[in-house]
Amino acid sequence: MGKQDRDFKAVGTRPLRPDGVEKVTGRAKFGADLSAPGMLVGRFLRSPHAHARIRSIDTSKAAALPGVKAVVTGDSFDITKVSSGNHDTLANVMARDKALYEGHAVAAIAAISVSIARKALKLIEVDYEVLPHVTDVDEAMAADAPLLHENMFTANLTPKPTKPSNIANFYEFGHGDIEAGFAKADVIIERSFKTAATHQGYIEPHACLANMTQDGQGELWCCTQGHFMVRNVCADLMGMEISKLRVTASEIGGGFGGKTTVFIDPVALMLSKLAGKPVKIVMSREEVFKASGPTSSTSMRIKIGATNDGRLTACEGEFNYQGGAYADSPVQFGAMSAFACYDLEHVKTVGYDVAANRPKNVAYRAPGAPMAAFAVESVMAEMADRLGLDQLEFRLKNAATEGTRSSYGPTYNSVGLTETIKAAQSHDHYSAPLGANQGRGIASGFWFNFGGQTAVSLNVQEDGTVNVTVGTPDIGGSRASMGLMVAEELGIEYDNIRCIIADTSSLGYNDVTDGSRTTFSSGLALINAAKDAKAKMCARAARIWDIPAEAVEWKDGCVQPAGANAGEFEPMSFAEIAANADNTGGPIAGHHEINASGAGVSFGTHMVDVEVDPDTGYVKILRYTVVQDAGKAVHPAYVEGQYQGGAVQGIGWALNEEYIYGEDGRLQNAGFLDYRMPVASDLPMIDTVIVEVPNPGHPYGVRGVGETSIVPPMAAIANAVSQAAGVRMTELPMSPPRVLKAMDDAKGG
Amino acid sequence: MGKQDRDFKAVGTRPLRPDGVEKVTGRAKFGADLSAPGMLVGRFLRSPHAHARIRSIDTSKAAALPGVKAVVTGDSFDITKVSSGNHDTLANVMARDKALYEGHAVAAIAAISVSIARKALKLIEVDYEVLPHVTDVDEAMAADAPLLHENMFTANLTPKPTKPSNIANFYEFGHGDIEAGFAKADVIIERSFKTAATHQGYIEPHACLANMTQDGQGELWCCTQGHFMVRNVCADLMGMEISKLRVTASEIGGGFGGKTTVFIDPVALMLSKLAGKPVKIVMSREEVFKASGPTSSTSMRIKIGATNDGRLTACEGEFNYQGGAYADSPVQFGAMSAFACYDLEHVKTVGYDVAANRPKNVAYRAPGAPMAAFAVESVMAEMADRLGLDQLEFRLKNAATEGTRSSYGPTYNSVGLTETIKAAQSHDHYSAPLGANQGRGIASGFWFNFGGQTAVSLNVQEDGTVNVTVGTPDIGGSRASMGLMVAEELGIEYDNIRCIIADTSSLGYNDVTDGSRTTFSSGLALINAAKDAKAKMCARAARIWDIPAEAVEWKDGCVQPAGANAGEFEPMSFAEIAANADNTGGPIAGHHEINASGAGVSFGTHMVDVEVDPDTGYVKILRYTVVQDAGKAVHPAYVEGQYQGGAVQGIGWALNEEYIYGEDGRLQNAGFLDYRMPVASDLPMIDTVIVEVPNPGHPYGVRGVGETSIVPPMAAIANAVSQAAGVRMTELPMSPPRVLKAMDDAKGG
Repeated sequence: MGKQDRDFKAVGTRPLRPDGVEKVTGRAKFGADLSAPGMLVGRFLRSPHAHARIRSIDTSKAAALPGVKAVVTGDSFDITKVSSGNHDTLANVMARDKALYEGHAVAAIAAISVSIARKALKLIEVDYEVLPHVTDVDEAMAADAPLLHENMFTANLTPKPTKPSNIANFYEFGHGDIEAGFAKADVIIERSFKTAATHQGYIEPHACLANMTQDGQGELWCCTQGHFMVRNVCADLMGMEISKLRVTASEIGGGFGGKTTVFIDPVALMLSKLAGKPVKIVMSREEVFKASGPTSSTSMRIKIGATNDGRLTACEGEFNYQGGAYADSPVQFGAMSAFACYDLEHVKTVGYDVAANRPKNVAYRAPGAPMAAFAVESVMAEMADRLGLDQLEFRLKNAATEGTRSSYGPTYNSVGLTETIKAAQSHDHYSAPLGANQGRGIASGFWFNFGGQTAVSLNVQEDGTVNVTVGTPDIGGSRASMGLMVAEELGIEYDNIRCIIADTSSLGYNDVTDGSRTTFSSGLALINAAKDAKAKMCARAARIWDIPAEAVEWKDGCVQPAGANAGEFEPMSFAEIAANADNTGGPIAGHHEINASGAGVSFGTHMVDVEVDPDTGYVKILRYTVVQDAGKAVHPAYVEGQYQGGAVQGIGWALNEEYIYGEDGRLQNAGFLDYRMPVASDLPMIDTVIVEVPNPGHPYGVRGVGETSIVPPMAAIANAVSQAAGVRMTELPMSPPRVLKAMDDAKGG
Repeated sequence: MGKQDRDFKAVGTRPLRPDGVEKVTGRAKFGADLSAPGMLVGRFLRSPHAHARIRSIDTSKAAALPGVKAVVTGDSFDITKVSSGNHDTLANVMARDKALYEGHAVAAIAAISVSIARKALKLIEVDYEVLPHVTDVDEAMAADAPLLHENMFTANLTPKPTKPSNIANFYEFGHGDIEAGFAKADVIIERSFKTAATHQGYIEPHACLANMTQDGQGELWCCTQGHFMVRNVCADLMGMEISKLRVTASEIGGGFGGKTTVFIDPVALMLSKLAGKPVKIVMSREEVFKASGPTSSTSMRIKIGATNDGRLTACEGEFNYQGGAYADSPVQFGAMSAFACYDLEHVKTVGYDVAANRPKNVAYRAPGAPMAAFAVESVMAEMADRLGLDQLEFRLKNAATEGTRSSYGPTYNSVGLTETIKAAQSHDHYSAPLGANQGRGIASGFWFNFGGQTAVSLNVQEDGTVNVTVGTPDIGGSRASMGLMVAEELGIEYDNIRCIIADTSSLGYNDVTDGSRTTFSSGLALINAAKDAKAKMCARAARIWDIPAEAVEWKDGCVQPAGANAGEFEPMSFAEIAANADNTGGPIAGHHEINASGAGVSFGTHMVDVEVDPDTGYVKILRYTVVQDAGKAVHPAYVEGQYQGGAVQGIGWALNEEYIYGEDGRLQNAGFLDYRMPVASDLPMIDTVIVEVPNPGHPYGVRGVGETSIVPPMAAIANAVSQAAGVRMTELPMSPPRVLKAMDDAKGG
């Protein structure tokens, strides 16, 4: 599938993962696995109410309990010293004035044992004034909705609102004249959709160990996707200088975007500061569900116009995303990405970011895009059927290509959507027969990908092996992909390289491992660091040979005299120069710091076959194929894993996962028994096809692959279920009762 | 006292130490303070014999004991894969074929508890063939001495020896014609001296936590002066690639050279590898004494000739150093440094490095020099008295200065010996009256100082604070001195800098913190890294101003347009540029790797007053003054601490400390109750004078200060005691029985 001429030696191979044995044998150190002498246990008291004013908190009895060493409330932090951009984070970490959702932290204690900690929490007296609450996005947008924030006025709206509301932000994207576009259409379809909030569902709950010294220096061990971000936010909340806090990232038992926000870390630091001891906090699963991570529930309206021969004339979308207590929804990305797959003359999307009495919204893999794709690709499928066109042919006809002006603004460079559609067309899955009650769904999807701030180092050891240091936690196998790219660039064996994730004191700032940025940007920085090391090794050889540095070049994995006048010398290998570092100037290293741009966008096209049980509404996934552009797959097994993982999370989101709230605004299914994620027995093997259309912004053509794979599944499955059930499904999850009701309603109607 | 014109802002101030509060409150993490889930306890079985052939070791009963997870003997390591330079280290870590001293490790076990470990050790059956032993250096040199190594032939001797002996190495230094020199002398004094072996006496025993994974990657936490050295040696002994082992240095509770060698770390790694679990080993104090660290006992002969007017005409010395089981004595440094204080036309020293049935010799602060100085400066004092010259005047007349050809070869650059002697002359201590039974001793001393391989990084944070990363464990306050030099170079506040000791994966190779090299070479590298960062910050400002990089300069702590044509811009502060890093290219960092040369030698002159109790021989230190050249004192309080610490260790060595062996070759005083180190109540306040003769090899003039201070004390005290007791003391320690006997012998004779 590749277009690249270059012969790769290391990149594209499938070595064993360096963290595999440790993780399989249980010896890898996750967030809860570090301890310290004299360590205390930290525990939270959380609001039982969805919305309540905190009249007062009396912690005196808890503080007086023997074995309790520190008590923290919102007042323990000095908000006047916290930058305004972190005020919401602080308010979420520890409630101030109001509790905005069930599970909102209102106090925390550090004690010498779990049992004392539990006893102490019961002694904290909170005087709540319970307020009316709202959890549904449409209800939260209503004029008479209970207000979460009395001073919230929608940003970006013209005219500027004079009344506060739960709508924090308004966004608008697109180009052309949408009405003129619809006027050219032969067929127009308009539909509304709703999706439920889902949780990233990582196996490992948030955990950390904090240690503040009396002179204001701090250390933090935590499970995160971005320890530099954790450091900067925690330092801000604690009123510390950034350099005084040292954060080390543990191994991470899943993140998927959910570990890009701080929840417990500043509280652990504050408890440690007050107690003068190390403090460990580990969230329970219930806390994870109630007070971390979910993404938006949404309400969307899509209108698409097309000519009879299958050209899209206009696309319009309205996206209302429930953004949790602080209106942090990814609606902007939803509105930007919704129509990004298509080459459109007239397109318009608007987005509303809506506060509700739910946990603070956090990124979840391709934040905001899967819901929008579900809506758009559902209408696309309906349109293809209405026009009597083949699903893939219809998409191919309208697919964005190099030079297309994207629906969110920029013009695309080389992109691989058409290649994924064509690969799907020629895949035997697409032409396989279907049985009774079965349906096949197709959907394409898009993700931006991202570069960002990145700093790496590379140190050459005297035995010719290499240590590589990156600042981006390895959530998807990046230690292996980094090793492969360095092996490629240095011309040494992958086995001779060990990549580690450095703590925040050892490297410059690294953005979070998110936005599918790590393989791209840490890889790019490492390739540059390797070039830096190679240049230094050339200079060392020149010194050994006593010839000018310009008379030496790196060629065929060796240092060689360059040109006829350089002199006659045997080429020196990487290992030889490494062994002579001591005598030629000291240690050999390569470094690179960058704010990387040029991360290429990535497209994917998914196919899924389902069977719907007409008696129960139960949906069985029969076959699933992911086709996606990787630019260049550095470690194909990991790329396949990302494709499969995205599909599986999408299946859960499509069929079962949802936050279920009672009338009281309390979450009713805060556990894995009731929040139903797919397990192995629910799933077929997910088939994958790696398409490689090189990203011109990366020397090896690499594109991020982690997020695009979760964008098409819900739409593809909805299209398949709609075909099998004989009724268009417009609401997620398509759980058995909901599918059964839709089928019943369709029969009744 | 300084000669330097430069105005320092940060360097030379005395900020609080960054590790102070943690250490005082007991929260600093030393070698034994780290734990890991599932961790096992490692324990050693050690030889009860001074010299024995190991016929066999049966570990089967121990291995079968429930709770024992791994057993290691010498055979567990594959010596064929170990580089020859580490064969002795391996043999010392775990005996092979022979046990060479009491306490030599012969086996080790890892178990789930201390009690099981102890029980298991008793179940190991070792069949020893006890051999004759030798512990005294003169006896070990005798022709009929028991041989430790049947294949040891003295190196460097001409003709090459045909018979094996306990003498491993012969060294010779000097220049001129020694006989011609003595022929010119009016007075010649020749004396013999002996000194006892002493231990570095660090408070913290060796401790480590090792974790080997099944796929051959390793992590090690340990207490060491050089974790990069530990990594390289352990990787070699384990047959691992260097990059696969990651070593982190704990805080260190004293080292003084004694933590520059591996003892327990490879065994912990091997136990962990075999057990598949983390293994912690902590030495007991008895193990520390019996199987780590001591420096040589010695036997020396000094011959000095001088004219009546006090010019030295010739100096000769023979130095026989007991080098432990593997003949690792620092006799080379003893022979090199012995006459380094003086400007000599004719000088010759020879050194013999002698194996004996004692623990492997390890570096101890200015290794080899204090004993040689004791001998030389004793004869110098006697000569001054014989010639009727003032002690300081006599030394001043012969003192080495800039341009002097040193007794060990190189010609001195700018040095500060005469400045220390003059400072001593004008110090009121020198003219203070003495009472009955009191004496005053003077001695000068020298240490080479060292540069070596060094790699550092410096990362600028967005709030304008800075993280500094070095690879040299902080044994004497280097985090503070590094911060001061970076503050000086960057023109920011010391409080805005946090210096950390990086693990071995994060930086290029760093030589051990020894040779008084850290403040010099890590500082030098950091100053260069700071210059690197400043150059990058200039480039960032040029980008912001959109002018060429050459049109920007660093001036007065700000970035400014350079020259009239650069344009008119407000200077940008360090903090402003730091805050804009994101938008101007990403993180800002400075790096430097170097094999540093140019560490200036350092001289000191000590004065001490003692009182000898004529009835008991007990020596009381009445007053002590250290005068030493620091080049430039970066943090004067730490420099004073080094001066005081060296003096105190020298006092212990002079008066009480010694390894006492029984006839059976067993150490009789392996504990702090019987190995008598000075405590606070034994000591007066040690007065200090910092002389500053800048080292031309360092941009701030810094010289190492850690070792010179232990060189003069034994000689100075011996001179004082000899004066007070009325008899020349030629043997250390000058413990009460020995002083009493000398006085009795003198009376009787």
